[in-house]
Amino acid sequence: MSRDEFTFIAEVLAPLAAGMPGALGLADDAALVACPPDRELVVTKDALVLGVHALPDDPPDLVARKLLRVNLSDLAAMGAEPLGYLTALLRPRELEDAWLEAFAAGLAEDQQRFGLGLLGGDTVATPGPFAATLTAIGTVPRGRVLRRRGARPGDDLWVSGTLGDAALGLRILRGLAVPDEDAGPFVQRYRLPEPRLALGVALRDLARAVVDVSDGLLQDLDHLCRASGVGARIELARLPVRAAARAIPGWREAALAGGDDYELLFAAPPEVRGRIAELSARLGLPLTRIGTVVTGSGVEVRDEAGRPVTPATTGFRHF
Amino acid sequence: MSRDEFTFIAEVLAPLAAGMPGALGLADDAALVACPPDRELVVTKDALVLGVHALPDDPPDLVARKLLRVNLSDLAAMGAEPLGYLTALLRPRELEDAWLEAFAAGLAEDQQRFGLGLLGGDTVATPGPFAATLTAIGTVPRGRVLRRRGARPGDDLWVSGTLGDAALGLRILRGLAVPDEDAGPFVQRYRLPEPRLALGVALRDLARAVVDVSDGLLQDLDHLCRASGVGARIELARLPVRAAARAIPGWREAALAGGDDYELLFAAPPEVRGRIAELSARLGLPLTRIGTVVTGSGVEVRDEAGRPVTPATTGFRHF
Repeated sequence: MSRDEFTFIAEVLAPLAAGMPGALGLADDAALVACPPDRELVVTKDALVLGVHALPDDPPDLVARKLLRVNLSDLAAMGAEPLGYLTALLRPRELEDAWLEAFAAGLAEDQQRFGLGLLGGDTVATPGPFAATLTAIGTVPRGRVLRRRGARPGDDLWVSGTLGDAALGLRILRGLAVPDEDAGPFVQRYRLPEPRLALGVALRDLARAVVDVSDGLLQDLDHLCRASGVGARIELARLPVRAAARAIPGWREAALAGGDDYELLFAAPPEVRGRIAELSARLGLPLTRIGTVVTGSGVEVRDEAGRPVTPATTGFRHF
Repeated sequence: MSRDEFTFIAEVLAPLAAGMPGALGLADDAALVACPPDRELVVTKDALVLGVHALPDDPPDLVARKLLRVNLSDLAAMGAEPLGYLTALLRPRELEDAWLEAFAAGLAEDQQRFGLGLLGGDTVATPGPFAATLTAIGTVPRGRVLRRRGARPGDDLWVSGTLGDAALGLRILRGLAVPDEDAGPFVQRYRLPEPRLALGVALRDLARAVVDVSDGLLQDLDHLCRASGVGARIELARLPVRAAARAIPGWREAALAGGDDYELLFAAPPEVRGRIAELSARLGLPLTRIGTVVTGSGVEVRDEAGRPVTPATTGFRHF
């Protein structure tokens, strides 16, 4: 038995908006957002299609949390702090209420964790697979937003966390055999990325250019380089890759071109290396210097012996 | 031949963002929105699935314009003026570039007409039908937003334009036979609603409660009544229905319960009847008094002879 639209909104979605006065109880045509006078708003919008961006049998709460976190990662890359979100759900008629309730429970868990709430949205029927889009709204002090542009030759290139885990997690979910004790962390990284919000805020004082690694290191670094009008040289040996990953064939490709890690990649002048080390310690998050910004254009990768590497693939394409 | 993702963004979407500095050329992870200090933001999000909310052979530019206008109608109902929008496109792999280019051309036409621009979004592949969601952002002077709540017993109930046209247009597109000279205007209303933005702005000074008629008069009036804690009595004979519509069987149901008209329904005290008449003349838009707000709850419809009518259906349900 499926709830009707208005019961679904009242029982499943309205509780997600309870902490947001501007949501107006999801009972109006739109929501209100009051922006503090010394800040500006940062908005981003990402979509997820079940079977394309998440596996059909992924737990629905994790599907929801990933969708939210992917958007929060965009806010993190801009140095913004989350405020609220809107979501549109495309619902196949055969989809059980229980699946959507679990999806909403995932949103509830993460919106509490990351300090935001539901502002509004839409739920419609579709003959296609379940899909959802989410618009996240954050704020940043006026004039302090972080951009992809701004990197200068001589800057260090840094990346947070570890690379390639999510791509290996997806391969494991698709059948790649690895020792049982190794599988969990990779799958977890694929299903539940960690938006680096605190890092993004701290980078307002340290970084010249930032991008999140959503489509793969090489591709996102290329975006940063193009936006900044520079080139980059990175060293394969420096890439932060978990020891368990190095035992899996294809780990280099995963680290260079695998998507879905949602780490932050940033350029910063060498003078702040010490402060970045302190920040890493304070956040309990590895920050690894992987290369250098250079004049020119393009991304050059050097292997352990210093030889240029030509990767087989440069990253995820959405279509 | 299909453009790749980044070429598509650069060639088809980026021009839509050209007038929006906060869009950052669609080349960053998110967009910036600076809210004027004396205003607050109004945000809304609606979704469209081809084959559900638009017909598969509807012209793509009109599909896009309808999606944008449906969102703008939500802003109108809140008394807000449009600022910008984000859109997520779910693209079947077999969909031609030309279809998407025409879709974007529709957005270009209407964003110019209504004074807003693209801020960002996402384009992803889907095995389902084409779908799109759109998040519209508007602004309203601080504290002046219009709500569904606020209607008081004794208020007049007004509606703009005419009712039922879009529902009849959809029936015509599905095969209902009407004289050729009559079909065009109905189909036009279904495909290309007119968001009542200027009316919404003017109603800030006149209306106590407003809703847009998206799901059908009775259903949206019921929303307004519930939000306001009142009931309503409307007169069938007063409903603004085009003469050509009255020749089509089922016109009463279309006027009472047909969706997609996107007129504004509002409650206002009798003292402002004269000012509403002046507003109607100034906008060149019929504003018709269709009934009265009463104490209690529920919506009562009276027919031409003053007898209560029980409608067969009360409006569109999304699922």
